[in-house]
Amino acid sequence: MIPLLENERLDELQRNHYKIIQNQKKFRFGMDAVLLSGFTIVKKNEIVLDLGTGTGIIPILLEAKTEGKLFFGLEIQQESADMAKRSVQINKQEEKVKIVEGDLKQASNIFGKEMFDVVVTNPPYMKQFHGLQNPNHAKSIARHEIFCNLEDVIRESASVLKNNGRLYMVHRPFRFAEIIQELKKYRLEPKRVRFVYPYVDREPNMVLIEAMKNRNCGMKIEAPLIVYRAPNLYTKEILDLYGY
Amino acid sequence: MIPLLENERLDELQRNHYKIIQNQKKFRFGMDAVLLSGFTIVKKNEIVLDLGTGTGIIPILLEAKTEGKLFFGLEIQQESADMAKRSVQINKQEEKVKIVEGDLKQASNIFGKEMFDVVVTNPPYMKQFHGLQNPNHAKSIARHEIFCNLEDVIRESASVLKNNGRLYMVHRPFRFAEIIQELKKYRLEPKRVRFVYPYVDREPNMVLIEAMKNRNCGMKIEAPLIVYRAPNLYTKEILDLYGY
Repeated sequence: MIPLLENERLDELQRNHYKIIQNQKKFRFGMDAVLLSGFTIVKKNEIVLDLGTGTGIIPILLEAKTEGKLFFGLEIQQESADMAKRSVQINKQEEKVKIVEGDLKQASNIFGKEMFDVVVTNPPYMKQFHGLQNPNHAKSIARHEIFCNLEDVIRESASVLKNNGRLYMVHRPFRFAEIIQELKKYRLEPKRVRFVYPYVDREPNMVLIEAMKNRNCGMKIEAPLIVYRAPNLYTKEILDLYGY
Repeated sequence: MIPLLENERLDELQRNHYKIIQNQKKFRFGMDAVLLSGFTIVKKNEIVLDLGTGTGIIPILLEAKTEGKLFFGLEIQQESADMAKRSVQINKQEEKVKIVEGDLKQASNIFGKEMFDVVVTNPPYMKQFHGLQNPNHAKSIARHEIFCNLEDVIRESASVLKNNGRLYMVHRPFRFAEIIQELKKYRLEPKRVRFVYPYVDREPNMVLIEAMKNRNCGMKIEAPLIVYRAPNLYTKEILDLYGY
């Protein structure tokens, strides 16, 4: 029996009867992690790294959904990494999902260069201390560029990826131009992009990006991903992604 | 009476009873020019340049729709420039619309640096000779990077724009990452982007971009622009843009 600590609860995922431990008072995974898992392609026997895995939602979902061989999650916050490890135990995923406590800025030192087929990341969206109240809070660290910034994430991704390896990232559209510039700087070529629009007549609030290491330019923007067809009613695509 | 030459015809625009001369056998303006005119903001008394104006559709429409002071159109093809000049005469727009025959790679020599508040451009979309049959044909010159490439267009735009001036461009999504990179190289910061999707469940086939000279990064992606609500039925937004 895996213990739950104070304020923790066990949430059902809609895949393989898997569960995840989350702290009700701290950062919980959002739709961005679910959409990123849906957008990410992992082929048979590929080795995957999630940079900044938090409570491990992305490797847990990718192990459930794909035929990848090994799924690593790197997380700097001890408490989140510990929750992720216990979730992996509950789900009996220890053979394939490995949670590592460490700083993503050191990813290429921790894992070595050119080791992964796929890197996934749901990094902090907000510039360092923009509008920030409490820089020590787990939620702030997940949302703001306190321990790492966009360039750190992209530089380390490029370093740990094999040639032709793929990076999958979810981010906010207002930083899209910066993201493209940084990706190109580290020879990660944007190949596939999808904007997530809450409603068909609204601005997108998320962007999903696939970039490939050392590829030529030329990209594809996909059909819009629309979240709600009416207030509180998800579109079919979103329901499918959540596994309902 | 302005003469029409062989194969030319006079098409109605849905603005101010304006008309445009086009050659039925050569390049005629498309929806991209109309959408670009709708996306472009021209404020009162601003001075505007259209790089590669073709038969002059963009300055003709912008003069009709905005309170700008002067609208220049630069065109390398003598025949197109001549049609544009005659259309301007027919519409009695000579006071405000000036068609200049010349090479856009020389725009900053022709007009001088930092002269314009707004630059608009609907440049060739395709890389130089990609799939090209007939490099001398007017249509090929409008569609392929024969006389100018993306970098030429962006470099000259940056050069002729005033500080904080705005560039408006329509292009194909597959080149979006390149466009962002070139814009940033010439200190034109992408600020506003809109993808044009033929149907709500399809990939976009056009992208509209506003960039501002010497601005900080941070951009807005707008709500999707959807062209058809059903086969052969335009959405209301498209009908409004065409002026019906």
